[in-house]
Amino acid sequence: MPSPTPTPLNEGILFTDLYELTMAQLYLREGMHATPAQFEAFYRINPDFGGHQAGYCVSAGLDDLLAWMERARPSRAELEALATLKGSRGQRLFDDAFLGWLGDQAGFPGVTVRAPAEGRVVHPHTPLAVVEGPLATVQLLETALLNHLNYPTLIATRATRIKFAARGAPVFDFGMRRGHARGVNAGSRAALIGGLDGTSNTGQALALGETPRGTHAHSMVQAFMAAGMEEVDAFRAYARTFPDDCLLLLDTVDTLGSGLPNAITVFEELRRAGHEPRGVRLDSGDLAHLAIQVARELDRAGFTRVGITLSNQLDELTIWQILQQIELEAPRYGVDPGPLIARLGYGVGTRLLTSHGAPSLDGVYKLVALWRDDGWAPAIKRSDSLAKATTPGAKQLYRVYDARGMATADLLTLVDEVPSADPSLRLRHPTERAHRTLPASAVGGIEPLLEVAWRAGGRAVGSPDLATLRARRAADEERLDPGVRRLINPHIYHVSLSERLWQLKQELLADPDGNGA
Amino acid sequence: MPSPTPTPLNEGILFTDLYELTMAQLYLREGMHATPAQFEAFYRINPDFGGHQAGYCVSAGLDDLLAWMERARPSRAELEALATLKGSRGQRLFDDAFLGWLGDQAGFPGVTVRAPAEGRVVHPHTPLAVVEGPLATVQLLETALLNHLNYPTLIATRATRIKFAARGAPVFDFGMRRGHARGVNAGSRAALIGGLDGTSNTGQALALGETPRGTHAHSMVQAFMAAGMEEVDAFRAYARTFPDDCLLLLDTVDTLGSGLPNAITVFEELRRAGHEPRGVRLDSGDLAHLAIQVARELDRAGFTRVGITLSNQLDELTIWQILQQIELEAPRYGVDPGPLIARLGYGVGTRLLTSHGAPSLDGVYKLVALWRDDGWAPAIKRSDSLAKATTPGAKQLYRVYDARGMATADLLTLVDEVPSADPSLRLRHPTERAHRTLPASAVGGIEPLLEVAWRAGGRAVGSPDLATLRARRAADEERLDPGVRRLINPHIYHVSLSERLWQLKQELLADPDGNGA
Repeated sequence: MPSPTPTPLNEGILFTDLYELTMAQLYLREGMHATPAQFEAFYRINPDFGGHQAGYCVSAGLDDLLAWMERARPSRAELEALATLKGSRGQRLFDDAFLGWLGDQAGFPGVTVRAPAEGRVVHPHTPLAVVEGPLATVQLLETALLNHLNYPTLIATRATRIKFAARGAPVFDFGMRRGHARGVNAGSRAALIGGLDGTSNTGQALALGETPRGTHAHSMVQAFMAAGMEEVDAFRAYARTFPDDCLLLLDTVDTLGSGLPNAITVFEELRRAGHEPRGVRLDSGDLAHLAIQVARELDRAGFTRVGITLSNQLDELTIWQILQQIELEAPRYGVDPGPLIARLGYGVGTRLLTSHGAPSLDGVYKLVALWRDDGWAPAIKRSDSLAKATTPGAKQLYRVYDARGMATADLLTLVDEVPSADPSLRLRHPTERAHRTLPASAVGGIEPLLEVAWRAGGRAVGSPDLATLRARRAADEERLDPGVRRLINPHIYHVSLSERLWQLKQELLADPDGNGA
Repeated sequence: MPSPTPTPLNEGILFTDLYELTMAQLYLREGMHATPAQFEAFYRINPDFGGHQAGYCVSAGLDDLLAWMERARPSRAELEALATLKGSRGQRLFDDAFLGWLGDQAGFPGVTVRAPAEGRVVHPHTPLAVVEGPLATVQLLETALLNHLNYPTLIATRATRIKFAARGAPVFDFGMRRGHARGVNAGSRAALIGGLDGTSNTGQALALGETPRGTHAHSMVQAFMAAGMEEVDAFRAYARTFPDDCLLLLDTVDTLGSGLPNAITVFEELRRAGHEPRGVRLDSGDLAHLAIQVARELDRAGFTRVGITLSNQLDELTIWQILQQIELEAPRYGVDPGPLIARLGYGVGTRLLTSHGAPSLDGVYKLVALWRDDGWAPAIKRSDSLAKATTPGAKQLYRVYDARGMATADLLTLVDEVPSADPSLRLRHPTERAHRTLPASAVGGIEPLLEVAWRAGGRAVGSPDLATLRARRAADEERLDPGVRRLINPHIYHVSLSERLWQLKQELLADPDGNGA
């Protein structure tokens, strides 16, 4: 029954690649549409941002996906639009039977989505989502599911790296002007899940219950100067308007020759009036060198607690480099690098929200099993290399912790397996013959990672707040080996198969029919 | 007067960086909010996708920007959300006077936007938009304007390069699964402006009056095999469902050993039943080599007109390389490369919609002039290098054509200048002392490029259809020197200043106050 709600054509159920619809019509005609099927979404390779590849990802986007699944109720307008499409001989591409079926797909009936909770640390070749349900319906979900998970997971991952490089200092997302159109809303949310401390994206911050961040641009100083006044007049006006939140941008005219002395003048006036200045921002030049000079002069003027925010094409490597330069260079100017580094904050923009160096996550959605007679028949795509081959079958995902409580491997099993370390746990390499055997004493815990997120036509999990998502991410990161968190050349985290799953994969790859029959 | 319309907080007037609002409040408090001001949006550098930099860009996004400006009418909910924001001492960040002012900004009163028509070829340092109006109101537009123009311009530019590399063959956008969340809708539209022939993005295609494109995925073949059938059964089912639009994906099992012979079997069956098969698709392996083998076998079977679509991480360089390999390799297999190349089509995805190699355009929005007493006072940001310095003042933009009708330079002038080639036209280099002088005989025309797009609270231009946008782009590209269209190391197109504008810039850069006073 189509919903009468008017959704823009490009945001609802038709926010999808056409081939999901043509395949669904085929399944309907062939009587296969209701056959239970399982698909897995996963990515194959941690993103490499250009000589610095991530050691893990942070899952994000699930809540937006579930919200879309709730909203994407086929409307009359959408079905009518599809009815206008013609094939090459002028015949209708989609027939009434298919449009009738599609109109009944509100709530994705019969579909169950299981996924790691949003914000969890995730690894290559493990499910970002397992989708089970009628073949045509789960096929229909593919594009929107990938679109909602791939980009946010990429950005949450990038954000946590940047926050890590900043050694816990405040980091803010300023990227919406160059991010990808309306996609920046998902990007800003993902950046916050990844651990950033705020975003300039006002509407999205307010929608998420966060405080948006920002002060002023160069244009404000330029406007005062074009009006015949001076930089210091612009600073005074900012201090008048926001006396308790005064953060001044120093580099419109000349950072050290004009911006800094003018800021100190205005900060002194503020202090005499009983207000404490908040900070300065540097947006061009040698940020490390300038930060040292600015810190020294602020200290001399008695503003030891005024923050210094750096911005301009920053990412994890530029921040790392700035901090190293400060450690080397600050002592030469009589500045103690420790307190200077502790007063820094960062605005990151373009390179975060467009994920410069790796603007996409290679997430895919693969059929892994189809119900046949009385059980799940595994599916495999045999033309792929062994390394690329989908691990077949209906599966479960577990995280194995060592005796210290640190994550030591993610373990894929068949869906009906309950892994146990009694007397020992065998972890198979996914593509080679190697394996590890962990004695019971080395296993601190085995945690199932997949939770039901969607079932029976609606969400099975609430909409988590950002604090929950950040806490999940932080807890997982604390249980990662420091080597896996390295920014460059991280230690490879093990993703293993159970013995039974490994055997099944070998059998399927050896079977010329490729269907386990 | 706030509008009662409920817009999501993150899509309306608050789709902006916070600092636009803090600066607007400052201007209001200081009584500067109504001072007429001019901002220019422009980009500084043509995008470099990694050893291959564009020689020009294709402007896109203006229509979406104007649609946003129409929709972004401040609502009570938005003003109430801003009223909840607190400063560091718990005081309200935005006062009632400001919220009252903001509530009156529906339609961006007093603002005029002039821009090159969407789809036009544009160059660095020339306006993507000139925005004139009350200082606080034009400041308020900054983030949304940049967001709506930067990404689509980047993608239209990338799309035209890919279409150029494909030598006019059909190219389709399949990128929505890995593009940046909802930003893919803007990306797919921009790809079509840039000359692509279709998109798989069903909703956006329908919203734009286009036919969405797509056939089937590997999963369809896998589903038939997991159900105990064969690849050929999946192909037959596709042919039954879409007998006049049958395009089969060959590489689920083994492209040459299984997919191709099975497709030929089904194509023969189709032809016997009176239908003409449409094509095959190759999505993995050595696409050039496979295309040759597939063409040879299709020809032998009598299917000389069946198309061959290639996909898998394609962009302009991979397509270029594939075509060169075909030209070298096809004759060895007795295949004529010309007809083979003529039957190819391409699906481009991730690398197009995420603009792999250069995921952002460096578009900025700079104050260029402020009304003072009885004239425009130019604004300049002096801390920049000469090369980076904003060209000051209220300006016009012209395109100068040579005697052949080819574009030879874009010319920035003061707003009140009407350039003339009688007796000759002097074109100043923007940053150096060099100049060119064109005699009247060398000038075929001087075309003003900026058109009024928004005035008096609403659009001044209609919403153009895609055919119009593509025709504009194509006409401009035909008037570009072939050297400027080269994919690698293009000839640098001249962007020049008029003599008067050049003199003004020199005076301002020499003036220690930097305000022309």
